[in-house]
Amino acid sequence: MRHHGGMSQHSAGWAAPAAEILRVPSAGLAGVDPDSTPGYEGSKADGALSLESGLLALGDLQERLFARSAVGEARSSVLLVLQAMDSAGKGGIVRHVVGGVDPQGVELAAFKAPTEEERRHDFLWRIEKRLPRQGMIGVFDRSQYEDVLIGRVRELAPAEEIERRYGAIVDFEKRVADAGTRIVKVMLHISRDEQKKRLMERLERPEKHWKFNPGDIDERLLWDDYMAAYDTVFERTSTDVAPWYVIPADHKWYARLAVQELLLAALEDIDPQWPIAGFDVEAEKKRLAAS
Amino acid sequence: MRHHGGMSQHSAGWAAPAAEILRVPSAGLAGVDPDSTPGYEGSKADGALSLESGLLALGDLQERLFARSAVGEARSSVLLVLQAMDSAGKGGIVRHVVGGVDPQGVELAAFKAPTEEERRHDFLWRIEKRLPRQGMIGVFDRSQYEDVLIGRVRELAPAEEIERRYGAIVDFEKRVADAGTRIVKVMLHISRDEQKKRLMERLERPEKHWKFNPGDIDERLLWDDYMAAYDTVFERTSTDVAPWYVIPADHKWYARLAVQELLLAALEDIDPQWPIAGFDVEAEKKRLAAS
Repeated sequence: MRHHGGMSQHSAGWAAPAAEILRVPSAGLAGVDPDSTPGYEGSKADGALSLESGLLALGDLQERLFARSAVGEARSSVLLVLQAMDSAGKGGIVRHVVGGVDPQGVELAAFKAPTEEERRHDFLWRIEKRLPRQGMIGVFDRSQYEDVLIGRVRELAPAEEIERRYGAIVDFEKRVADAGTRIVKVMLHISRDEQKKRLMERLERPEKHWKFNPGDIDERLLWDDYMAAYDTVFERTSTDVAPWYVIPADHKWYARLAVQELLLAALEDIDPQWPIAGFDVEAEKKRLAAS
Repeated sequence: MRHHGGMSQHSAGWAAPAAEILRVPSAGLAGVDPDSTPGYEGSKADGALSLESGLLALGDLQERLFARSAVGEARSSVLLVLQAMDSAGKGGIVRHVVGGVDPQGVELAAFKAPTEEERRHDFLWRIEKRLPRQGMIGVFDRSQYEDVLIGRVRELAPAEEIERRYGAIVDFEKRVADAGTRIVKVMLHISRDEQKKRLMERLERPEKHWKFNPGDIDERLLWDDYMAAYDTVFERTSTDVAPWYVIPADHKWYARLAVQELLLAALEDIDPQWPIAGFDVEAEKKRLAAS
């Protein structure tokens, strides 16, 4: 069940709209405890039930969004951007939140290190190509922000080029939003200790070894640099049309529920209605009956 | 639970491997009753439980397949080709069978009427571009077969061009299979009466109107021509490396279970094992502990 109150809505269990609670605070990451579960008043067990009922609501909204665009009545789409340190749970969000939606309505793009061809274009070239079509929920597993995160920390581009990119991203996202895409940017925020625990688990379980890369530890050693780079990203690129949300992610169940809640709010804001038939229903019934 | 017997395996509830039971018979569509549930010995309620446990097995196999290719150890993939008359349940297969798998391991391609650019290339050009990457489960919602089904029935190309395509498809699929892709081609077979019932339901429920297209009735009026075109497809393109399966589809629960069983068999035939770590696990543990 969703509560309607003024401009915003929220699901049972939430004290207020997640979009308000989780918007990046002015203090940046220092203002968010990775171990907390802000705004959600239930237990982990309640959270599992909320996730289940939320999937049904999300499925319904997604189908309406898809239907509107299938008949050419709307150009809206949703884009979920996921950024995080290794093992923070991006994969779990894709599997347990996005995975509950009809695959026909989802476009998933995982951005790895750019290919040689991609490096010969502006950093937004490969991003543009993977923007969701109208009616779709797009998900970016990593994104244009890699180019100002690892790009900055590892100095993969000159300082002035990194500087240029913040403004380029803001302009790009404004154009994408103006064209009909609701952009939801999420940073899954885990603590350094929790990351150590999760990486150790990958090392201890042979069936998890493939998920581990020695480079993950190299990046971990630059933790503070990454946190500073994230704070700069928030300062420079959190806008009204494409706000950043920082989601405490030491508790996987909470992070999944929070992302789902943000997606629900984005879709409810679009408020897609079932399209009206563009044909004569009674005439088609007769034609079908006679066939 | 899966039973191992000789070369092939099958899940509880199945009298024999689905790949044997459902392979297109020499009589073609005339040899398959759309209302039947061949090989599955349980009830509809049993089928729902089998589908649930099958999803877990499928998820495990998919993750192994993905892991092997993520570390560069294998080049295998799976390609599920779905063909059917309107309303036969392709969408339900995508949602309820494929939708249970981690979206990160699935590549879905829905082929509509070709664009102008696509029409200026050979009919296989757009197909090639959407083949699944190594480690992925690819799903074609419609496929190269449209070009010898609606292509033949509606005479969208000269007769000799249609003739050429059967051989071209066989050669193409052989190359794709030789390169490491298990091809599972499924025709969902509904009866003409069942289609009428399903289309009428779409017309009677306003939230289903967007799924209805007056053209669906036009195609329905050519039912016998389509059945003949399918039979020709089976005769000309069912090969050992890319066999056709005809799945009775008047019962949605059975069709979903049958497709899942075929996918399970394809993945078990690949038999992907967890990759061996390409790094020194103990050394990495120490490095992580110190970080």
